[in-house]
Order: sequence, then C-alpha cells, then structure tokens
Amino acid sequence: MAASPPSAIEFWFDFSSPYSYIASEWIEALAARHGRTVRWKAMLLGVSFQAAELKSPVAHPIKREYTLHDFERSARFAGVPYTLPDPFPIATQNAARIFWWLADERPATAPPWARHCLRAYFTRNVNLADPAELKRLAAEFGIDGGEAEAVWSSPAAKARLRQVCDDAVAHGVFGAPFFIVDGERFWGNDRRAQIERWLQGGSFQVTAHGDL
Amino acid sequence: MAASPPSAIEFWFDFSSPYSYIASEWIEALAARHGRTVRWKAMLLGVSFQAAELKSPVAHPIKREYTLHDFERSARFAGVPYTLPDPFPIATQNAARIFWWLADERPATAPPWARHCLRAYFTRNVNLADPAELKRLAAEFGIDGGEAEAVWSSPAAKARLRQVCDDAVAHGVFGAPFFIVDGERFWGNDRRAQIERWLQGGSFQVTAHGDL
Repeated sequence: MAASPPSAIEFWFDFSSPYSYIASEWIEALAARHGRTVRWKAMLLGVSFQAAELKSPVAHPIKREYTLHDFERSARFAGVPYTLPDPFPIATQNAARIFWWLADERPATAPPWARHCLRAYFTRNVNLADPAELKRLAAEFGIDGGEAEAVWSSPAAKARLRQVCDDAVAHGVFGAPFFIVDGERFWGNDRRAQIERWLQGGSFQVTAHGDL
Repeated sequence: MAASPPSAIEFWFDFSSPYSYIASEWIEALAARHGRTVRWKAMLLGVSFQAAELKSPVAHPIKREYTLHDFERSARFAGVPYTLPDPFPIATQNAARIFWWLADERPATAPPWARHCLRAYFTRNVNLADPAELKRLAAEFGIDGGEAEAVWSSPAAKARLRQVCDDAVAHGVFGAPFFIVDGERFWGNDRRAQIERWLQGGSFQVTAHGDL
C-alpha cells in the first residue's frame, strides 16, 4: 500500500488582516519546500474575536500605535510590499463570499483570488468593502462584476461563509493568520519559523540551562 | 573624539510571563553578539494591561488553550527548559521590588536575581507570590530572608516599582517581554529575529511581488 500523502496546511486568513496578507506571500513557498499543499480558508476575524472576547490590536490604546508600525516593519522583514490602507480595517464578507464560491466551483482560482484581493487592498488601497471597487476588482480577475455582486448577495454564499466562520471557532481559530499543520495550531505571521521547524520534522529540543 | 558606545537594549519583563522567561534566556547572548549590553527592567504586566485595556492571553476563551500550549512549544523551540507553574499567573511585585532594590544598590546582581527567580518559577514551580518561598529563594541567592521581606514591604520599594511601571506605560510598553533598541520597540519573544536583523544593521528590504 502506498503511504498516504502528507496533509495540506490549513491557512486561515481575513482579507483585512495585514499579518494574513504578509503570510499569504510566503505560505505557498514554505509548503512547497516540504512537499505540502495549502488549503486556503477565508474567515471573518470579527466572528473569531467575538467568540474569544478579543478586539483588534488596533482597537487598544498604546498597542494601536505599536501595531500599526509593526505591520509595516513585519512586511519589510518578510520582503513584502505594504502600505497601510485607508480605511482600515474594513468589512470583508463580500470578498470572502466570492472566495468560497470560487473554492466550491473552480477551486484552483480561489487562492489566486485571495492574493489578488489582499495585494489590491494592501498595496493599491482598493477598498474591498466598497461594492463598486470590489466589482472592478472582480472584473480585473475575469469575473463579471454583476455576477460577483449576485454571488455575494445570495443567501447561499452568506450561509456558506457563516458555516466556515463557525468551523473556524470550532477549530480554535481565534485570530489570523492561523495555521493548522497535522493538527498542530500556529497563530500569527510570526510563527513562520516554528511552522518551518515543524515541517522539517520538529527538532524542538530543550537544552539544559547554560551559563549566560 | 571617540564614538559614543552603542546604546543598551532595554528588556522589560514580568516575573510571571513565560514569554519573558524564554526571552531572558537568549537576550544576553544576542546582545553580546552585537556588542550591546542589556538593561533589564522588571515591570508589572497588570499595570500595562490596564493602561492598554488588555487582559492576559490566558484570560480569553479559546485563546487560553492555544496560549498554554504555545508557551511550552515556544520554550522548546528556543531550547529552554519550561514547566507551566501552578499557580499561574501570580502576583510578582515582591520579586520585582527586590529586583529594583538590587538594581539601585548592587546593579550587577539584579539580572542574576531576575534569572534566579524566573528559572525557579518556570522550572521548579517556586511560587514567587508566596512570602515564605520568596524568602527561601532570596536566601539561596545570598540575601537574608528577613532583609528581603523588609525591602519588599518598604514604602520606598513600593514607590520605586510604581514609578517604573508608570515609566513603562509612558514608553508604550503594553506587554512583556518588550524590547527597546535605539528607540525602536519590539514586543514579544517572537520578535527575536527582527531584533537580530535590526542589530545587524537592518536589511529590512522589500522586494517586488514575485510569482508564487
């Protein structure tokens, strides 16, 4: 019997999350280096925040200024172009509904749609929450604007995204980006090195206390 | 004229913070590799949390279970022995007051005291909030237990720590560990690689979007 293929890396992201955007730029290459694929999963951070009684880091005094700077620094550290969009953050359910419609109908196009939207928002200031801008973005991607709007307005697309967000909470996803690898959970763009170590076979060794 | 020496790295920590403990095990070696010294600064996370309207990550549903696991995994990743203490978290003002008393009276002994306490709490389950246990820990370190208690009970030591915590908030310290390097702020054990890159001269380069 052939060995079963290694499982895909689940990559949960929100279209309005700068750290999700940064991670979206490295996750495919990291997975490929270890013979893995990536299962992209668009979610709504607001739903996860509510379940975990959290707020956005930029909604907290003091932490807000740090976080806005850290978004930009972390993008530079990862070598990823980034400009803080205005408005930020935004509602992302329409872009996410299109994502899941593609994931169900034309799966190979869903991750490219996600990258198209994330790059548009975080480098070209395209407001994904604005229906007219999102329709233009869909058209750029080869989806008719009217069809896109019909999809994101449909009860089926709304129900699909609600179900995905419930799944996220059920799987312990309280933030984004969030990765699940072989059942192991990793939260945050800054868990990249730990994920890489995990995929290498996990040499998470503990040494004794040495003299400093 | 000789060039002025490179500035010290400010290392803000709380004695009940696992990520602070992990960082305390690598910060000196990292600084030394780049010709820097470390200015250790004991603070009270509770004061910073209140100012930033935050709670401990383990006080949030869903996030709690992840965080408890991540403490342990991040310690293994850094090669640092770690056992979740019980009780956790604890009040750390007495250990912190001893720290600042040493920092003012015998500065060279303050960081070793911090390491002594952090290792005791996170590997030997010594409860730093228990006066009898903290007195024994002081005696192990060479401080008379009665003197230690007199120090942490004194109005001067209480005022000193209050002033330090006010300073922390004034400097934007909303969590721990928190590092300030040449005025640049880094929050979290997971900013280690960014700090190292900063000390190397900061090749935080942005590339163009490549094809994934």
